[in-house]
Amino acid sequence: MIRLTRAYTFSASHRLHVAEYSEERNDAVFGKCNNPYGHGHNYILEVTVTGSVDSQDGRVMNVAKLDDLLRNEILPRYDHRNLNLDVAGFATVVPTTENLAVEIRRSLDDAWPSDFPRLERIRIRETDRNIFDLN
Amino acid sequence: MIRLTRAYTFSASHRLHVAEYSEERNDAVFGKCNNPYGHGHNYILEVTVTGSVDSQDGRVMNVAKLDDLLRNEILPRYDHRNLNLDVAGFATVVPTTENLAVEIRRSLDDAWPSDFPRLERIRIRETDRNIFDLN
Amino acid sequence: MIRLTRAYTFSASHRLHVAEYSEERNDAVFGKCNNPYGHGHNYILEVTVTGSVDSQDGRVMNVAKLDDLLRNEILPRYDHRNLNLDVAGFATVVPTTENLAVEIRRSLDDAWPSDFPRLERIRIRETDRNIFDLN
Amino acid sequence: MIRLTRAYTFSASHRLHVAEYSEERNDAVFGKCNNPYGHGHNYILEVTVTGSVDSQDGRVMNVAKLDDLLRNEILPRYDHRNLNLDVAGFATVVPTTENLAVEIRRSLDDAWPSDFPRLERIRIRETDRNIFDLN
Amino acid sequence: MIRLTRAYTFSASHRLHVAEYSEERNDAVFGKCNNPYGHGHNYILEVTVTGSVDSQDGRVMNVAKLDDLLRNEILPRYDHRNLNLDVAGFATVVPTTENLAVEIRRSLDDAWPSDFPRLERIRIRETDRNIFDLN
Amino acid sequence: MIRLTRAYTFSASHRLHVAEYSEERNDAVFGKCNNPYGHGHNYILEVTVTGSVDSQDGRVMNVAKLDDLLRNEILPRYDHRNLNLDVAGFATVVPTTENLAVEIRRSLDDAWPSDFPRLERIRIRETDRNIFDLN
Repeated sequence: MIRLTRAYTFSASHRLHVAEYSEERNDAVFGKCNNPYGHGHNYILEVTVTGSVDSQDGRVMNVAKLDDLLRNEILPRYDHRNLNLDVAGFATVVPTTENLAVEIRRSLDDAWPSDFPRLERIRIRETDRNIFDLN
Repeated sequence: MIRLTRAYTFSASHRLHVAEYSEERNDAVFGKCNNPYGHGHNYILEVTVTGSVDSQDGRVMNVAKLDDLLRNEILPRYDHRNLNLDVAGFATVVPTTENLAVEIRRSLDDAWPSDFPRLERIRIRETDRNIFDLN
Repeated sequence: MIRLTRAYTFSASHRLHVAEYSEERNDAVFGKCNNPYGHGHNYILEVTVTGSVDSQDGRVMNVAKLDDLLRNEILPRYDHRNLNLDVAGFATVVPTTENLAVEIRRSLDDAWPSDFPRLERIRIRETDRNIFDLN
Repeated sequence: MIRLTRAYTFSASHRLHVAEYSEERNDAVFGKCNNPYGHGHNYILEVTVTGSVDSQDGRVMNVAKLDDLLRNEILPRYDHRNLNLDVAGFATVVPTTENLAVEIRRSLDDAWPSDFPRLERIRIRETDRNIFDLN
Repeated sequence: MIRLTRAYTFSASHRLHVAEYSEERNDAVFGKCNNPYGHGHNYILEVTVTGSVDSQDGRVMNVAKLDDLLRNEILPRYDHRNLNLDVAGFATVVPTTENLAVEIRRSLDDAWPSDFPRLERIRIRETDRNIFDLN
Repeated sequence: MIRLTRAYTFSASHRLHVAEYSEERNDAVFGKCNNPYGHGHNYILEVTVTGSVDSQDGRVMNVAKLDDLLRNEILPRYDHRNLNLDVAGFATVVPTTENLAVEIRRSLDDAWPSDFPRLERIRIRETDRNIFDLN
């Protein structure tokens, strides 16, 4: 069994804010990320699949098909978007990178073709020093 | 003469849009960067000074003083901000990274202490593959 | 369950030397790292926690609190220090990066607040090509 | 138990092609990687071992011995080589990075000294965004 | 005046060999790069233009147009190619990265639209530690 | 004319301290870098030469010869060394990276073979965000 990890980039903005929290609590929990008009990041999304190596073509999967899935179904929702205002799932859910990972994982699970190897993990690098993994 | 380059990071969002342009022209000029609600980046700002090495302390300058200037005067204006809505200079000027470089350069020139070595260049890395230099 | 990894940097020096070993054996085991007056590195410390995402604030933990712990309790012991001479734990223990990982892990375990998510792993990057993980 | 990961680089060329496939199928499976005269990459090979820390010398293993093994037995087979034409194992097997990982893993297993800690995983980074792990 | 640098990647193989040189001389000049069947790299091509910032749209140039030029005219000649066998210009010229820089610079000069800002420099990163600039 | 930049790495320790300065002044000028027992860095040294491309072998210079010079004459003085205690030139001169650049530049000028292309610049990266250039 081999794991293949493929990385994709997208740029988005977000504001971390919970409507039910007081101003003080939002500030304590989110700090600068609570700034009213938002800010943004260059996100790196890594998708890891696990499978056996095909005895003829020597591949875990055809990466062009994985790229097609990401480019058609996933990345356009987030790339060059405001996560709070452009993504339906974040109308009432705060777009932390944890929740973004959960949403992307769910979207991938829903769209995952049955002939793809198993989706093992996604990782989102929000910055060089803030990294989230979801198995 | 030695050049010292020091790098700082900040995260911000922006929307590239010229009010006087038609929708079609905004799209042709800015593409995805024209998306209505904006998007964002992890910016890296490099500041380069040129000077002679002090014969006693062996330094071009005291970098702690440069850090103070950046952290007090420059970075808070942009870090975790929406450039269009949070920065006065971008109320009527489109916050391309070119214009951001011009604005930061001007701010640095205005605030530059007379005992600092010469400010030679600033560089802003918007992404790994989109880099702007202003001498 | 989501894993959050946060990275911190520090610069330190060390000498790898076992007093009980002969000069030849020290050289065979440690090579250039046995040079009498030491040398140094820019270390990157990654701290990984595992937990569930809070249903309201969408976070595994408040990273500002993790930063406070690292900046108050851990990093000042090592940053801009000579590991052999400045760190009590290395008076009689050789400050290999393996032992540094063990010491930092123990310090984190001791100081870890009960309301933090589980500390899953630390990783220390001594150089780009020499990396140590401790679960 | 600590994991030590050590990284090595090599440059090689390859062509992805299965003789039994039609031209159309080779193109569908391999895309540009099927170009007749091949292309190449700067590969990064990471070798991860797991072991206990020696109570005296504080090391999982003597990395100089690991380097010797890689530099004498492994890297010369691939570095500055055409994988299809220079490596016997790829005379009839397509040199995908999956198969390269399998071949390197097998070579390491065969040559692995009994006093080395356990070889846990190898990872090959073909590009920054195409990464293969083999436990 | 602002400089914009934009980076592109491609993967190619080459063999460094001068037919007029003896085997010994080829080995002395090119070392491992003279291996008969070639090897390869992940090249990074940086293109730097210099111009003034447009007072309305705030850009040095429309980067989509630069991308189009590179993707249509330049990169397909080299990406996933064997430089010696696939590129006419290297039938009798040795495809060192110096000569590759000269060839790409010439191609860019030939294809450069008159309304583009001045092409100031190209840089090719053959590896992380082998970098070539051509003004 | 083409510029070739080649990068080398070394690990060293240093303490920044001027004997003639009071404790307060040393602290004001050097901060944490004045810690009594020193600290260290992974330094990256970039050497840039400028020359014409040889019409036959297509190279600015034989990089193996540049590597030999660096590995025989320059790097062993600093790699895995304590700059203050192991390097004669820093017995009375403070080993800031500015002074290290001056010393390495002078050493290179002294040892530079007459048939090498012109040495244009050296750059030392002390950390990712602290970079020194000397033409």
